[in-house]
Amino acid sequence: MATLVDIPEELIPLQGFLAEGMGLVEGRMQKQLASDLPPVQRLCKHVERYHGKMIRPALVFLSGLASRGEDRVPTVHDEKAVVIASVCEMVHLATLVHDDVLDEADTRRRTQTVNSLRGNEAAVILGDYLFSAAFNLCSQLSDQRTSLRIAEVGMTLCAGELLQLDHREDFSLDEPTYFEIVKRKTASLIGAACELGARHAVGTSGESPARLERFGMALGVAFQIQDDLLDLTGDQAVVGKSLGKDLEKGKLTLPIIHHLASAEATQRGRTLAILADATGERFGDAHTRGGLLRSALEQTGSIEHARGVAEGLVREAREAIAPLKETPAKKMLNLMADAVVTRSW
Amino acid sequence: MATLVDIPEELIPLQGFLAEGMGLVEGRMQKQLASDLPPVQRLCKHVERYHGKMIRPALVFLSGLASRGEDRVPTVHDEKAVVIASVCEMVHLATLVHDDVLDEADTRRRTQTVNSLRGNEAAVILGDYLFSAAFNLCSQLSDQRTSLRIAEVGMTLCAGELLQLDHREDFSLDEPTYFEIVKRKTASLIGAACELGARHAVGTSGESPARLERFGMALGVAFQIQDDLLDLTGDQAVVGKSLGKDLEKGKLTLPIIHHLASAEATQRGRTLAILADATGERFGDAHTRGGLLRSALEQTGSIEHARGVAEGLVREAREAIAPLKETPAKKMLNLMADAVVTRSW
Repeated sequence: MATLVDIPEELIPLQGFLAEGMGLVEGRMQKQLASDLPPVQRLCKHVERYHGKMIRPALVFLSGLASRGEDRVPTVHDEKAVVIASVCEMVHLATLVHDDVLDEADTRRRTQTVNSLRGNEAAVILGDYLFSAAFNLCSQLSDQRTSLRIAEVGMTLCAGELLQLDHREDFSLDEPTYFEIVKRKTASLIGAACELGARHAVGTSGESPARLERFGMALGVAFQIQDDLLDLTGDQAVVGKSLGKDLEKGKLTLPIIHHLASAEATQRGRTLAILADATGERFGDAHTRGGLLRSALEQTGSIEHARGVAEGLVREAREAIAPLKETPAKKMLNLMADAVVTRSW
Repeated sequence: MATLVDIPEELIPLQGFLAEGMGLVEGRMQKQLASDLPPVQRLCKHVERYHGKMIRPALVFLSGLASRGEDRVPTVHDEKAVVIASVCEMVHLATLVHDDVLDEADTRRRTQTVNSLRGNEAAVILGDYLFSAAFNLCSQLSDQRTSLRIAEVGMTLCAGELLQLDHREDFSLDEPTYFEIVKRKTASLIGAACELGARHAVGTSGESPARLERFGMALGVAFQIQDDLLDLTGDQAVVGKSLGKDLEKGKLTLPIIHHLASAEATQRGRTLAILADATGERFGDAHTRGGLLRSALEQTGSIEHARGVAEGLVREAREAIAPLKETPAKKMLNLMADAVVTRSW
């Protein structure tokens, strides 16, 4: 969490609690992924390097604490919250492994991707293993609620990916469809992590699970828009994964959608020509084309537009949990929301 | 089922009951896979063509009936059995869709594969969607037992696939490792279908679920060996899927393993050269190499060896359920076991 936000002194005990929780989640995942087969062990070991910021587990813990509304940071982690957090992270890891296959990405969190290191086949099966392990772990809870919700989110994530795939190279993709894709493929799991964390803490009563789900959904969409921006303007060494992949794969991002919708005809035509010039015959290599694209986007204020939308979503997230009692957990959630749009990783 | 075994007259009512069950399973799957998004609908519609013999749903129903030991065929299907049967079939469909990606197969059940028609990306995500839908459906049951077992089987299937992948092009693969792979990647789901069907019918008491699991495991391994044989000797038009893929993908099958272990040095060397001649430079095209391979395998009696092992497994399957009361369902299970090694599809 230290890399995620600058922590004010008053939140240091909470940060310690979260760090401890992450350790428990890592242990729980290792135990759940354990296999008697060396090839399975090796791949799971490799995926451990993907655990980066563990945003979803942090959201599960923080949503639970924020819902309870206690000022004091607890001293002991609750086993069920650790399970829910581990399940959310494993589903996320599974999608990362499969996304890297789809995107033909070579680098993820400064490490080689499973597909580039061990082939697409291993990556497809490893993703399935992670999904199954996540479902198996949530089936160990005393009731079906988490399993049902997580499997539903699994379906939603895939539906979002399929919708995106269907609109690949669709240069007339509009903002409503873009948001539909992002809500499903990125925000749904983040929203579910928040909701499940809250619901576990306070049960089915009260409105905090619904508030936290809205917080997570808005945060998730903002997160994706920031990812879009980093794919265009980020520094690969800082972001830690292959950049420029969105455009290479024909995925239209928010800045591009805004640009194509607002540019005048000549400029629009030129941008479409840059996007279509996959071989770089007309406009030069990927780096040069990236530069041309950025200038074009700046002319229509499309980078600023996307930033503005992301900032609006952060405000929406903050508003969703505004009625909750002021606790260290709520403060941390708000700091995380702010960090989503200021991050450069 | 009509294509699966020749049905004696006394089993016609049971056949009707199973046919009705298949209809319910198809309906349950359609309902579970329903989506508001046209690209998801289109892919799910395509996968409907994969529903072939629905062996796993049939095994769920028959295992339930055989465990109950009733002579009379019931008139109404039990909703929970339909759910379990649908879950098993959806997990199976998910593995088919992903297997076709791994195998780069073009044809499945006489229809184009999702990967060849819509690309690997759509196939990877569709497989994930099917997995999630299966887990979601079993999470709708009143207790976690089925979810837990199905997710565990999911992990087992993947572990088997990863073990197989790890031994690709491994010409010293031995029979114990081969059986380890097959038990996990093929037999585990068939064993679970039988066990879950039985357990649902009779609860945790009694030994019939364990007996039916053993029946299903033995049947599953026999099934895979017959698949191995068909990949070498089958007629693509009858089998309905791309053949010769195992060898092309460096997967050693039982006849080849036996041959390499029992051939004398010169013959072994020549077979290895045929297997390594992927471009056909030395031995001619795939068809010619297939012919050479079959003659070599016949010389060491390796086709017969594999047939013998499969037949032994069918006897093992029959013995596992021998103590159960003689009912139409048990008779049908035994007929299915026999059909596994005589089938040409």
